[in-house]
Amino acid sequence: MTTVNAYAVFEQGGALKPFQYELGALGDDQVDIKVTSCGICHSDLSMLDNDWGMTNYPLVPGHEVVGTVSAVGAAVKHLKVGQTVGLGWFSGSCMHCGTCMSGYHNMCNEAEATIIGRHGGFADVVRCKEEWAVPLPDGVDVAAAGPLFCGGITVFNPLVECDVKPTDRVAVIGIGGLGHLAVQFLNKWGCEVTAFSSSSSKEQQLKELGAHHVVNSRDPEALAPLAGKFDFILNTTNVNLDWGAYLDTLAANGRFHTVGAVPDPIPAPAFSLIMRQRSVSGSPLGSPATLQKMLEFCARHDIKAMVERFPMAQANEAMEHLKAGKARYRVVLDA
Amino acid sequence: MTTVNAYAVFEQGGALKPFQYELGALGDDQVDIKVTSCGICHSDLSMLDNDWGMTNYPLVPGHEVVGTVSAVGAAVKHLKVGQTVGLGWFSGSCMHCGTCMSGYHNMCNEAEATIIGRHGGFADVVRCKEEWAVPLPDGVDVAAAGPLFCGGITVFNPLVECDVKPTDRVAVIGIGGLGHLAVQFLNKWGCEVTAFSSSSSKEQQLKELGAHHVVNSRDPEALAPLAGKFDFILNTTNVNLDWGAYLDTLAANGRFHTVGAVPDPIPAPAFSLIMRQRSVSGSPLGSPATLQKMLEFCARHDIKAMVERFPMAQANEAMEHLKAGKARYRVVLDA
Repeated sequence: MTTVNAYAVFEQGGALKPFQYELGALGDDQVDIKVTSCGICHSDLSMLDNDWGMTNYPLVPGHEVVGTVSAVGAAVKHLKVGQTVGLGWFSGSCMHCGTCMSGYHNMCNEAEATIIGRHGGFADVVRCKEEWAVPLPDGVDVAAAGPLFCGGITVFNPLVECDVKPTDRVAVIGIGGLGHLAVQFLNKWGCEVTAFSSSSSKEQQLKELGAHHVVNSRDPEALAPLAGKFDFILNTTNVNLDWGAYLDTLAANGRFHTVGAVPDPIPAPAFSLIMRQRSVSGSPLGSPATLQKMLEFCARHDIKAMVERFPMAQANEAMEHLKAGKARYRVVLDA
Repeated sequence: MTTVNAYAVFEQGGALKPFQYELGALGDDQVDIKVTSCGICHSDLSMLDNDWGMTNYPLVPGHEVVGTVSAVGAAVKHLKVGQTVGLGWFSGSCMHCGTCMSGYHNMCNEAEATIIGRHGGFADVVRCKEEWAVPLPDGVDVAAAGPLFCGGITVFNPLVECDVKPTDRVAVIGIGGLGHLAVQFLNKWGCEVTAFSSSSSKEQQLKELGAHHVVNSRDPEALAPLAGKFDFILNTTNVNLDWGAYLDTLAANGRFHTVGAVPDPIPAPAFSLIMRQRSVSGSPLGSPATLQKMLEFCARHDIKAMVERFPMAQANEAMEHLKAGKARYRVVLDA
């Protein structure tokens, strides 16, 4: 038996408080991770507040974990105690369905989420199935790696899945925890990158991160001159946008792709889709194989999240900082 | 000067009447086609009635032409007088913009449409630029080939552009002029084909055309058991559908693709797109290169439109037959 020292919320809207729980016997295909740090994602906030109606209290948030393997199950061959790994939104897949067997463990119908019906990474130890504990290759900045495992993979996965090409003109809408990583990825992917940001104060920083152009998303006149420009638009915001205006900025064969859970359905006019062969799509977080590719890409190109650090004991303060919209760009808790 | 003997409509809602006009000097990059037959497409009806506000009267409809080259311009090298060719919705592209140079002559901003601002194929002669007069390979049924040049290419193009795979489970919504060709294409493409039809009387015929399954699209209970089934759905109808129910029938990575000009925007819920990596898209008619591929595919697999024939002098009767929804499945006029 392993006693876990964690931080949990005990009721909707409550504060994080110390919480201990026992992990049962380690399964043959499971590993325990001694947490070094854990990023905070907006979906941690959503789960704390039970926005999606799927929270069980007490809830231990945290699904952007970096740590070292502290125990491996009897059947685990590819991980060793002491190895540095990361753990994101998912903590297990069935490994045998057609979806898993096709490499899409992230879309397995039985995929287990790290903080749904079990406890996450605001803790000294977190457990998962071996396939979702992904080793960090040399060259990745370990201290800043946590946010790659949810925010990062959410925006890297579309580049792989949507076959974004280095010759493409691309745009990123919303520059926060996800968007600031997307800009870096797309710059190193070889693309011409436009960042749409509501905050003009970010312009210089966005150019340093790799944006070739920065456009004020609050300027209603800004979109018209961009008609027909983009091969790929990645939306990281979760607000309703001026969809018609954004779709008009797509080139022939262009794709508008959202990873932000926009509240209302996106109205896609058939005529706009048909005449320019456009598409509207979305994607979830990536598979373990894509996580591995992303980490290697980050190491090769020195891509990292810009993070602000708090000790895990100050998790409530860190949460408030995020809620207030002050995070630049991702908050990480040190265990 | 060439005098063309055509059939034109002289006012909105009017009948087709004999109409003569003069073609000027043949351009260096143009060809004249002596019309053998011409299919009738729903967009001919839309143009006759000025549904899209872009009709100039007198209007000579007809953009599913098959005929023989009767004259070639001085610069035309790849076509010869007497050669059998087809002509569809487009009759010219600029040939030099980036879109044309990428092989997408069908999305050229300057693409000329056969019946917009010029006269179409309800005539003894029709003129076009050389690139859109596409030779019929041996093995294509010439008498039934007209409908391939609009209806056919509209549903063949998505198979190429959307990278439909022979291992895919696919569905076709709406079995008319377009849908009955889509079913044939997809069967020979290697796919498992489901046909959604509002007419149960078509079931046996649809199976003969290549549908492995036929589903009654008017049965509100029919979609639920198909949840998560399809990799690709091709919508050929131009009516609003129960979008949520159809999107739910898409598998992970599934795509809902419309070639039907549905009146209202298609509401795509971000959550549905994101969780299963789904997309909603559309496409126009294909390029000349894709037309050539389609014709070779038809010859190889003995795919042809099922047609009902009228003499061109009975074009009004043929139009009424189509308007009444009686066409099984495409109407062709013999010149």
